[in-house]
Amino acid sequence: MPTKRPTISDIAKAAGVSTGAVSYALNNRPGVSEPTRRRIRDIADRLGWAPSSAARSLSAARADAIGLVVRAMDTEPYFLQFLAGVQGALDTTALVLQVTDDPRAELAAYRRWWAERRVDGVILVDLLDDDPRLALVRELAMPAVAVGDAADLPAIRTDDATAVTEVLDYLAALGHRRVVRVAGPTRFRHTTVRTDAFERAAGRLRIDEARVVHADYTAESAARACRRVLMSADRPTAMILDNDVMAVAALGVAQELGIAVPDGLSLVAWDDSPLCDLVRPALTAVRTPIAERGAAAVRLLLDLVAGVPPRTVRTSDPELVPRSTTTPLRCG
Amino acid sequence: MPTKRPTISDIAKAAGVSTGAVSYALNNRPGVSEPTRRRIRDIADRLGWAPSSAARSLSAARADAIGLVVRAMDTEPYFLQFLAGVQGALDTTALVLQVTDDPRAELAAYRRWWAERRVDGVILVDLLDDDPRLALVRELAMPAVAVGDAADLPAIRTDDATAVTEVLDYLAALGHRRVVRVAGPTRFRHTTVRTDAFERAAGRLRIDEARVVHADYTAESAARACRRVLMSADRPTAMILDNDVMAVAALGVAQELGIAVPDGLSLVAWDDSPLCDLVRPALTAVRTPIAERGAAAVRLLLDLVAGVPPRTVRTSDPELVPRSTTTPLRCG
Repeated sequence: MPTKRPTISDIAKAAGVSTGAVSYALNNRPGVSEPTRRRIRDIADRLGWAPSSAARSLSAARADAIGLVVRAMDTEPYFLQFLAGVQGALDTTALVLQVTDDPRAELAAYRRWWAERRVDGVILVDLLDDDPRLALVRELAMPAVAVGDAADLPAIRTDDATAVTEVLDYLAALGHRRVVRVAGPTRFRHTTVRTDAFERAAGRLRIDEARVVHADYTAESAARACRRVLMSADRPTAMILDNDVMAVAALGVAQELGIAVPDGLSLVAWDDSPLCDLVRPALTAVRTPIAERGAAAVRLLLDLVAGVPPRTVRTSDPELVPRSTTTPLRCG
Repeated sequence: MPTKRPTISDIAKAAGVSTGAVSYALNNRPGVSEPTRRRIRDIADRLGWAPSSAARSLSAARADAIGLVVRAMDTEPYFLQFLAGVQGALDTTALVLQVTDDPRAELAAYRRWWAERRVDGVILVDLLDDDPRLALVRELAMPAVAVGDAADLPAIRTDDATAVTEVLDYLAALGHRRVVRVAGPTRFRHTTVRTDAFERAAGRLRIDEARVVHADYTAESAARACRRVLMSADRPTAMILDNDVMAVAALGVAQELGIAVPDGLSLVAWDDSPLCDLVRPALTAVRTPIAERGAAAVRLLLDLVAGVPPRTVRTSDPELVPRSTTTPLRCG
C-alpha cells in the first residue's frame, strides 16, 4: 500500500538515524537523547509527518508484527505461494513464523506471542471443525483472521464448492462416469466443503461411481491411495487430486502400473503451481488464488489491528486450467 | 534443548500470569505491580529458578527471536527443508522472516530488526562475493551466522566441491565425455565454489567438453537454458542441474525434444528432495544436508547470542543418490 505520506523511514533517512530511533523520538519513549529527539521531531514536522489517530492511540502497544503458524510440509508449493502473497502485503510489518504439526505447540505459540506482545494479531490457516484456535483467540482477545470458512471470525473466503462442481461438470462432459477424488484429511473444513460439493454434483450428474478417498497432501500418502484405487478391477477413468504434489504422485503411479495418462486415465490437480506445468504430461489443474489469499489476509488483519470493523473478504474464484492430463473417455 | 531447570513458562503457569509478566518481574523492569513482582519472585524461588549468568547479563536486551531473510522463490523445496531444520532447533525462540528479492530491502530489514530489538541475531543465506551484508552486520555489531563459505563470519559449511568432483567422477565412469552443468547465478559464492571444482575435475578426468551455463534456479530459466544446450549438434550426453526444480525442467525439455532419458541423456539433480523421487524417471540426485544446515545455523547463532566464542561448523557431506536418470553412455 504505497502512500504519499512521509513515513518513519523517510524521517530516519533525512535524520541519518535508524527507524527505531525515530519511533522512540516520535512516541516519546526512552532510547534517544533529548537533542536527537528534538532534531528528529523538527525533521518530522518539516516533512509533514503526522501519525493517524488510530496509529497514535495504538502505537505504544503495537508490535508491528503479525504471526503465522503453518504445518510442516516437505514440498508444498502452496505454502510458498501463500507466503509470497503475505510478504507482498506486509511492507515493513514483520512476520513471525512458526512451522509445526503439533496443535498444542501452535496454541502455545499464539499465547506466547500475545503475552510477549510479539505480534499484533495472527492469521489462521487450515481451519478445522471445532477449531480450538477460535476459542483461544477469543479468550485472548487477539486480532485474528481466518483463511477459509469461519463463521465466527473475519475471514478470507474462496468459493471452492463452485470450482469442485465445475471440475466434475467438465469430467462428465468428457464422458467420465467413474471418478475418484483423493482428498486431504477429513479434519480440515475445506475438505468437508469440497466433499459436500463433490457429492452433490455427482448426484446431479448421475455419475455412477464418485468416490472420495483420503490422503494427507504428501506424495507418499497419495501414491499409496492411488495404487489402491488404480489396482482395482473397476478402476476410475478420471481422478481429482486435492493438491499439486498428490497429482504428480498420481502421474508416477499411473506410469508404474502401465496406465497411459490421459488415454487410460484423466487427472485433475487442485492448486495449480509451476510444478503442474513442469511435469509431463503437464497437469490439468484448478488454479486457486493462493497468493491473493495471503495478501488479503494480511490487509484484513492490519485493518482489524487499526480498529477497522471486522469483515469477510471473498477472493477471486478458482479456475480450471486444462492441460494435457484430461481427455474424452475412449469407449471400449 | 529440553532442560530440567524451571523455565519462565513454569513460573508463569504457577503464578497464573503471562511469561511476559514473569520476565518483567525477574528482570526488575516496569510492567508489573510491586505485589505481583514479589509474588512471582517467591514462586520463582520456590521452584528453584536461577538465570544463568550469561542469560542474566543479556536478559534485558534479549528479543528471544532470530531473523531470516530469504529470496522469493516459487516452488523451491530447498527453502522448506531449510526452514524445517531451522524450526526444529528453535524451540520457543521466535523466527522473524522476510521474503524478498530486493537486496536493499534485505539490508533495511536487518537494520530495522536490530534497531527495534526485534531479533537477537540473523542467519545469512546465499552469500555473494563482496556481500554487503557482512559489512552491515559488522557495523551493527549484530550476531550473525552465514550458511556457506564466509571467511569473516561464523559459518555453516558443506563440502560442495568434493561432491561436484564425485558427480563428475561418476559420469566419467559411465563413459560421458560431454557434460553441461546448469548452474545458478554467478553472483552466489556457492556457484563459484562448485564451478571451480567442476573445472578442476573436468581437467583431471580429460572430459572433452565440460561447460557451465547459468540460469536462476527457476524452472523457466532452466528450460530455456536446456533447450539451447540440447538443440545444438554436439549436445551433451549428460547434464548436472544445480537444483531439483531445474532438473525436473530438464526432464520436460528432453521429452519435448524427443530425447530419451537416460538412454539419450543422463541427468543429475543437485539438492535431492521428494520432488526428485516423485517424477518419472526418478532423478539421480546429490542429497545435501539442507535441514541439518538450518538446524546448525540456529544452534550456532543462539550460542553466539549467549556469548559462546564464534566457530565454524562443518555439516555432513553431500551424497550421490543414483536413481533412474543416469546410465552408461551407449556408443554409436
